[in-house]
Amino acid sequence: MHSREREELFININPLQTAGRTRAAVRKAVTRYVDGYSVCDACTGILHDIEKPPIKSLTRELAEFLNVDEARTTAGAREAKFMVMHSECRPGDILVLDGNAHYSTHVAASRAGLETVEVPAGPPPFFKITADAYAQTLAEVKARTGKPAALALLTHVDGDYGNLTNAAAIAAVCREAEVPLLLNTAYTTGRMPVDVRALGADFVACSGHKSWGACGPIGVVGAIGEHAAHLFRLDQRFPKKNIELLGCTARGSNIMSLMEALPLVKQRIKRWEEELENARWFAARMEHIGKGGIKLLGDNPTNHDLMRFATPLFHEIGQRQRKKGYFLHKELTDRGITGLKPGQTQWFKMSTYGLSRSQVEYLAQAFEEIAAL
Amino acid sequence: MHSREREELFININPLQTAGRTRAAVRKAVTRYVDGYSVCDACTGILHDIEKPPIKSLTRELAEFLNVDEARTTAGAREAKFMVMHSECRPGDILVLDGNAHYSTHVAASRAGLETVEVPAGPPPFFKITADAYAQTLAEVKARTGKPAALALLTHVDGDYGNLTNAAAIAAVCREAEVPLLLNTAYTTGRMPVDVRALGADFVACSGHKSWGACGPIGVVGAIGEHAAHLFRLDQRFPKKNIELLGCTARGSNIMSLMEALPLVKQRIKRWEEELENARWFAARMEHIGKGGIKLLGDNPTNHDLMRFATPLFHEIGQRQRKKGYFLHKELTDRGITGLKPGQTQWFKMSTYGLSRSQVEYLAQAFEEIAAL
Repeated sequence: MHSREREELFININPLQTAGRTRAAVRKAVTRYVDGYSVCDACTGILHDIEKPPIKSLTRELAEFLNVDEARTTAGAREAKFMVMHSECRPGDILVLDGNAHYSTHVAASRAGLETVEVPAGPPPFFKITADAYAQTLAEVKARTGKPAALALLTHVDGDYGNLTNAAAIAAVCREAEVPLLLNTAYTTGRMPVDVRALGADFVACSGHKSWGACGPIGVVGAIGEHAAHLFRLDQRFPKKNIELLGCTARGSNIMSLMEALPLVKQRIKRWEEELENARWFAARMEHIGKGGIKLLGDNPTNHDLMRFATPLFHEIGQRQRKKGYFLHKELTDRGITGLKPGQTQWFKMSTYGLSRSQVEYLAQAFEEIAAL
Repeated sequence: MHSREREELFININPLQTAGRTRAAVRKAVTRYVDGYSVCDACTGILHDIEKPPIKSLTRELAEFLNVDEARTTAGAREAKFMVMHSECRPGDILVLDGNAHYSTHVAASRAGLETVEVPAGPPPFFKITADAYAQTLAEVKARTGKPAALALLTHVDGDYGNLTNAAAIAAVCREAEVPLLLNTAYTTGRMPVDVRALGADFVACSGHKSWGACGPIGVVGAIGEHAAHLFRLDQRFPKKNIELLGCTARGSNIMSLMEALPLVKQRIKRWEEELENARWFAARMEHIGKGGIKLLGDNPTNHDLMRFATPLFHEIGQRQRKKGYFLHKELTDRGITGLKPGQTQWFKMSTYGLSRSQVEYLAQAFEEIAAL
């Protein structure tokens, strides 16, 4: 079954997918601009200045939406992160990053030739990233090398536990240490309100296909003040072209899909409290169903729709089932629920993003039935 | 009017568009996989190893099709070029490139911090890039710096004149000079047969949205031998992840569109001689119509569907027309022909790619009528 058909027929709880589902207007835009360089027809050399289709307005709107001075689309959040690292640092420089950072953050740092120093996450079951830990790591780097780290990166909400970090406090610590901060919002912007300037970060990376309901791959990179001027510096010989963007990035239907996705995103972030209530209700219900055999990891109560559960109960049930570890995936599929990795029973990640309360109740009921097997 | 509607209703002669038009199967694949991370559902950590949808087969097929040892999708040809430059060179290294290279090649070199040394194109009206000129420039670089250039790049067919270079001869010269060669085939692979190994290049960059009829942005990068091993090296901490690809690149519907585009591409390159005959017939006809006032620039007879004409005749006619320089665009639009930049009359670039002979005859007739105004 193809993805679009599955999205129509199933409740998908894969955290990679829940906030990436497209609406009809987005799919229509993709089809309209599907051919080659179609958005470039009216380009006079600067993609983000194209007035028809209104990419120029989109570019301004993105900066306003994130509250940064300048924003541009990229091929994804990882490309946005690499762009900032490559622009701000030199090979051998130190990047301080949180212990819950995504693998693509580490790979981007490898590509930029950076030494990474991790701010350790706190102990289980919370795995918390704190401002105190950032302060300590930044101080250790300075003590060791005699100068501040070149860059700090914070995963605003991480993809392992859905932990919401205190970005404002961590940004203040970075500012105090004179280290610019890149906020990776792959799991926040597009889902919940994020004001980059108010938080105090210098750069932001976003994922259009993960959290904005756009057709990927597409991301957004934003920057504030002199950081923006440097990140978006122009080529000497081709002075219309951004060096770090290689001239222009998300050309084609992907940028048109983001344009169509943005109005919905602006609306849906206002309902974030409802999303949180759904997630918290669900997590509490799961822990109740599990009677100790299902445990929410990370922030508890959760501060995000992405939740990781330790589920020794399902592992135990799997031992008695004919399909063993695959029983959970099968039982969920039989109930019209998809998105859990087959074979996984000891723990899993899931998301309730975009589901109605009655769908969340249906989900809880499904898990309750399965827990009784 | 949106691009797709224009593609249905007009003859589009914009060289950026003619070989980027999607077929229905491609558009269907885009819609099916339009949601977020849909192709990643069955991923176990390596995008190009996904078996369902068959991205693993696609990856193998791409390498076979280009005749390289390894190939991967990228966010576009410019990203492929930057990837090779970033992987092969260090900031300050010298890149030798042809005088007809695309701006994105220069911007990629700027981003990689490279010094560029140009192999000059020959004099007008042919602007020819020769193996002798490469040999001389490579020798000059070695004489000045005491060592071979770090990398050479050849624009296989350039976007200004549509000149087909003698890649085999230039590759032999580069090999002799011990300089690895990156072949930028944005205007060749997907349109005409290209055998990278037989030509003797070490790397290849391709544009899916420019020349393969795929939904962009998407490109392909390929490499041979030890160059492939280095370009596609893995991260130490995340040993499933390619460093230069940032883990994975063209995730989403773009890679699915390339998968659907490839079978057509394999067929259509067999008809390259017909495409060439159409282009040559058209160019000869234009020069005949112009009576000296229309002149084909670059290779003559042309070796590509992208053609640049100097058109003093149309400029002269424009002086007498109410719409001045905009008359040519208007007259073509009135005849159902699109893709020429409004206001341009002294010269223009166009392409006959994918047009039937009767459409090319219609085009010639339209220009003949306009030349008689």
